[in-house]
Amino acid sequence: MALIKVGINGFGTIGKRVASAVSAQDDMEVVGVTKTRPSFESEVARYRGFDLYTPQKSVELFEKANVPVEGTVEDLCGKVDIMVDCTPGNVGPEYKAMYAKAGIKAIFQGGEDHSLTGISFNSTANYKESWGAQFSRVVSCNTTGLLRTLYPIDRRFGIEKAYVTLVRRAADPGDSKSGPINGLEPTVKLPTHHGPDVQSIMPWVNINTMAIKASTTIMHMHTVTLELKNPASTEAAVEAIRNSSRVRMVDAASGIKSTAEIMELSRDLARDRSDMYEIVVWEDGVKAAGNMLYYYQAVHQESDVVPENVDCIRSMCKVCDAADSVKMTNQALGIPYKC
Amino acid sequence: MALIKVGINGFGTIGKRVASAVSAQDDMEVVGVTKTRPSFESEVARYRGFDLYTPQKSVELFEKANVPVEGTVEDLCGKVDIMVDCTPGNVGPEYKAMYAKAGIKAIFQGGEDHSLTGISFNSTANYKESWGAQFSRVVSCNTTGLLRTLYPIDRRFGIEKAYVTLVRRAADPGDSKSGPINGLEPTVKLPTHHGPDVQSIMPWVNINTMAIKASTTIMHMHTVTLELKNPASTEAAVEAIRNSSRVRMVDAASGIKSTAEIMELSRDLARDRSDMYEIVVWEDGVKAAGNMLYYYQAVHQESDVVPENVDCIRSMCKVCDAADSVKMTNQALGIPYKC
Amino acid sequence: MALIKVGINGFGTIGKRVASAVSAQDDMEVVGVTKTRPSFESEVARYRGFDLYTPQKSVELFEKANVPVEGTVEDLCGKVDIMVDCTPGNVGPEYKAMYAKAGIKAIFQGGEDHSLTGISFNSTANYKESWGAQFSRVVSCNTTGLLRTLYPIDRRFGIEKAYVTLVRRAADPGDSKSGPINGLEPTVKLPTHHGPDVQSIMPWVNINTMAIKASTTIMHMHTVTLELKNPASTEAAVEAIRNSSRVRMVDAASGIKSTAEIMELSRDLARDRSDMYEIVVWEDGVKAAGNMLYYYQAVHQESDVVPENVDCIRSMCKVCDAADSVKMTNQALGIPYKC
Amino acid sequence: MALIKVGINGFGTIGKRVASAVSAQDDMEVVGVTKTRPSFESEVARYRGFDLYTPQKSVELFEKANVPVEGTVEDLCGKVDIMVDCTPGNVGPEYKAMYAKAGIKAIFQGGEDHSLTGISFNSTANYKESWGAQFSRVVSCNTTGLLRTLYPIDRRFGIEKAYVTLVRRAADPGDSKSGPINGLEPTVKLPTHHGPDVQSIMPWVNINTMAIKASTTIMHMHTVTLELKNPASTEAAVEAIRNSSRVRMVDAASGIKSTAEIMELSRDLARDRSDMYEIVVWEDGVKAAGNMLYYYQAVHQESDVVPENVDCIRSMCKVCDAADSVKMTNQALGIPYKC
Repeated sequence: MALIKVGINGFGTIGKRVASAVSAQDDMEVVGVTKTRPSFESEVARYRGFDLYTPQKSVELFEKANVPVEGTVEDLCGKVDIMVDCTPGNVGPEYKAMYAKAGIKAIFQGGEDHSLTGISFNSTANYKESWGAQFSRVVSCNTTGLLRTLYPIDRRFGIEKAYVTLVRRAADPGDSKSGPINGLEPTVKLPTHHGPDVQSIMPWVNINTMAIKASTTIMHMHTVTLELKNPASTEAAVEAIRNSSRVRMVDAASGIKSTAEIMELSRDLARDRSDMYEIVVWEDGVKAAGNMLYYYQAVHQESDVVPENVDCIRSMCKVCDAADSVKMTNQALGIPYKC
Repeated sequence: MALIKVGINGFGTIGKRVASAVSAQDDMEVVGVTKTRPSFESEVARYRGFDLYTPQKSVELFEKANVPVEGTVEDLCGKVDIMVDCTPGNVGPEYKAMYAKAGIKAIFQGGEDHSLTGISFNSTANYKESWGAQFSRVVSCNTTGLLRTLYPIDRRFGIEKAYVTLVRRAADPGDSKSGPINGLEPTVKLPTHHGPDVQSIMPWVNINTMAIKASTTIMHMHTVTLELKNPASTEAAVEAIRNSSRVRMVDAASGIKSTAEIMELSRDLARDRSDMYEIVVWEDGVKAAGNMLYYYQAVHQESDVVPENVDCIRSMCKVCDAADSVKMTNQALGIPYKC
Repeated sequence: MALIKVGINGFGTIGKRVASAVSAQDDMEVVGVTKTRPSFESEVARYRGFDLYTPQKSVELFEKANVPVEGTVEDLCGKVDIMVDCTPGNVGPEYKAMYAKAGIKAIFQGGEDHSLTGISFNSTANYKESWGAQFSRVVSCNTTGLLRTLYPIDRRFGIEKAYVTLVRRAADPGDSKSGPINGLEPTVKLPTHHGPDVQSIMPWVNINTMAIKASTTIMHMHTVTLELKNPASTEAAVEAIRNSSRVRMVDAASGIKSTAEIMELSRDLARDRSDMYEIVVWEDGVKAAGNMLYYYQAVHQESDVVPENVDCIRSMCKVCDAADSVKMTNQALGIPYKC
Repeated sequence: MALIKVGINGFGTIGKRVASAVSAQDDMEVVGVTKTRPSFESEVARYRGFDLYTPQKSVELFEKANVPVEGTVEDLCGKVDIMVDCTPGNVGPEYKAMYAKAGIKAIFQGGEDHSLTGISFNSTANYKESWGAQFSRVVSCNTTGLLRTLYPIDRRFGIEKAYVTLVRRAADPGDSKSGPINGLEPTVKLPTHHGPDVQSIMPWVNINTMAIKASTTIMHMHTVTLELKNPASTEAAVEAIRNSSRVRMVDAASGIKSTAEIMELSRDLARDRSDMYEIVVWEDGVKAAGNMLYYYQAVHQESDVVPENVDCIRSMCKVCDAADSVKMTNQALGIPYKC
């Protein structure tokens, strides 16, 4: 079978990971990646073996810096079956027309609105909805994290209402510009966009979200409070969460007290870029009482959407069903598979 | 009228503030404060004009360091009407017997269990319960913060259920030892102690709390989600919160985006030690929808209980009613009074 | 004697402190302060009792926000003897012409180049140079910090060479936007501007500076390595530093282990805005060996230049000599005076 | 040739990395690693394929936790040619007698004093000194970092005097307990131990060091000021540094502005645990002027000593000369080799 030809538009935090993850699959290949400016990250692209493409207006910049490029973003569009658009939030709409004109498929990220594509994607919850689609959108890291646990819990116990507080990392680890260095910042516009974004995939769920930005770079954390339709014991809830796809359970009692130790574990697991693709839930932090269920989960904002992008390619290109795709993706990335 | 003679056992974060606040009142005076070790903080005590007392076992330490002390903690007990015990958590019980033997009243802090005194105190919610009592307990900074808004909202709209996530500062500003520097740590034991602590004063309230420790030193922040018995408009909720005692409303749109700017404002207000005694609520972060009410509040862990300690003295010494005490305390500390 | 009429152009971190410090003096008064946008800080100006002025172009903004202003910056120029320009770095030159046209004196801050005024000011080192001048410049917080110790050490022992590493706070406490949250950033352009800035006042000193930005908001810290012309004992060096004007000695052994405890001490001292106007040197961190002298000092970036601005007004307005001005300024701000 | 049998006593930050690095070599193997308590890290040992051994007193703990162990530390001593002791600082002396009794070689880490072994090791500077030794010591991360650049510069230009300020990370990334969260802490005991530690390998060098602990977890940074015996141009100095073994040059202008971006680059390089074994020097931060040379370097405290431990094994076991060992080690770990 011919490999699916994939382009990655934007080689930043998400784009470079999607590029590596696509490369690690047997049924697809990376034709090229794009950068708008020469920098150490364009050297990384070449170190990782990816051909560089640039917007037309940036060609001169790269020439001056003696960084060879293979062509423009338009050129790349002409060579691929599907583009994974990892440009910064709200830039995607500018490119959609270019993808449409080139007649290629494209995946956008959670920084774009659902309305851009009309379809949003999550491997666990709605793999089939993007089947054969020209355009789809992988929801944001936080929304992906919520869907990974809410969907299976809803299937098992039914969710009457969900209240979530998201404590968001203020900057990515490689971002030395953003703060706060010492402070907490509420997202005053309520409800935050996370609830509606979950509803773009689980429209039947009654969910409200609040968010606080904290002085940390490594992971987001959520407190999840659920009113269930059917009562759950703590044991049953733990079991349902543990068996969920791309969810990892840890135990504070074993020494994983905070997100710091999670990232340490992640490095120990020998993953590429020390990534933690799974949503991490503390087993000793799950508590059920009557119809109420409480738990904490941590989200690696840099990488949890990476396997979803790979699966989304397979759904849009009609390669195989969800179970097979998740199994292939997980195996290639070193994520334990749960059937 | 004779001044109430007050001792402060423990001149740390809370103790030194209570000492200053008591000194600022017209109807009470600080007879002495205690330290267990000579340090720059014992110099601060003298700089602020407070006589030093020490545990018997520490007398030699102070002599060696040439720091003059007036006597032992027992000596101080013999000179005061009431002791405010600001020793570290779980040390209070050791001292309770000494206070009882000396026949003096004593106030403990939120680090002790409610069972130590059987009475807990909050100026807004239950000033009268400590009337004439020998022992009482001012609840912790977070619990005080919750009572300041939950009590008036409950009175106005009725609270069916309360879900609170507390994002806790990991260390105080003057503590250079504690971390995490970069991480978020969940309190996995659920429910956290904050809910039951609120119920020590509002036993009728159905409240569940979860908590995350964050890499910040300056303030705690809460997300509060309330199911109300009677629906509220956002405007009515804002009004109820705004009119609450020792609550300050700020507006993210005016530049108070995070706890960093709150602390900046606090310094601008020319308060002693740049303290923010009030609980701070973002007006543009209040949202009511049907029976649900959502808001964010920030708690200055170092100082919000300070005015409550002063009021608690008055209640225990049967000086005056709540309204008069709050008015006097606020005036002395520069807190706007709301009748 | 008529009070010196002072205007403060820019009511930010430095400006609001200079306004308060000028107000606290017996021989000068604040006529008005300026803000470019209505915000919580313009409310602070009014809370502190200062009349507000704005640039012509901002008048409408304030009107819309219902924040009353007294007039424009030009209007303010017409009412004052001297303007303290606390606008952001590199904005000063735009205003210099306006001050000149109005025939008033003006002080600029360290964010401007020495060449703007041709005279730079430090109370300890060169009070007289600004005597009667129309324009002068108070050097930056770091440079002020260096002059406070280098000048007296040079007078006492002679400095052959000075090597300084500045570890700079990355953001001010009230700034929630700037990072890094977790990282260290070198100032690669060498020498950094700090050495030449010291030489704008001590041109004879051979000094080299390097700088690193760190994830902290509260203070800068310097490591100072000096090759002396005449050998010093550690005791003699400690004495020389201790006796220096606006320098405070602390002792790590007494519990002041880091800048965190310094800021705590500063709040305990009951200073306005919890400021530490003095440069802080660790006594147990001073070490002399032969001709070499090593010490650490901490600089409160928000406030150490504040008393210098007050003194600079007196020098430019020919009020009195350095000793008298420093004595008056210190007394008003609660800084111990060393004759 | 028979593989060198290596034990790792202590599977913490350094130990787990040395274990992986030894495993990656062709001429040695890891027989076992030790842990004192069952935890997620003992699971990591097994995940990475290492047999677990424990102190006699910990056997019961592991049995209770159902974590299988192969035997005691004594048992492990009986199976290996050499033990790499990665126990916490100052614990090494307790174990030295056990190693001696077992008749095996042992390498200690920089947390131990030079006097414990009488020989200290650095691949660049003194590979031969440990040749055939029973006991040696790999110097600390900071000292290793200094030797990597000071030694070649001394060989090329001669160092008359060295002044170094070390800005130290306050905690490792996986340590969620240590602070400060917001502050800078000087090491007041001068000179700090780093200078004498460099002299344990380069006894002829005149070096003075000062140190400040900063609120960061990812890397140390040094400012290095050198008085050279022979003048260097900036270009010549850059060339000498660039050609040094296990030194990587980066460029702030290319986007590597801080240690945050270095760690990002490190993850992009696909190293195990995202480690940066090389000392990182900013090319645009090197400045020579006459006999003076200034530069900044960053040190990855978790990993820079890892390749030195591998080389030290080869020197002590008389496998091959320095150049061959460094080449083999680098190749296995993905570090560019410079002949």
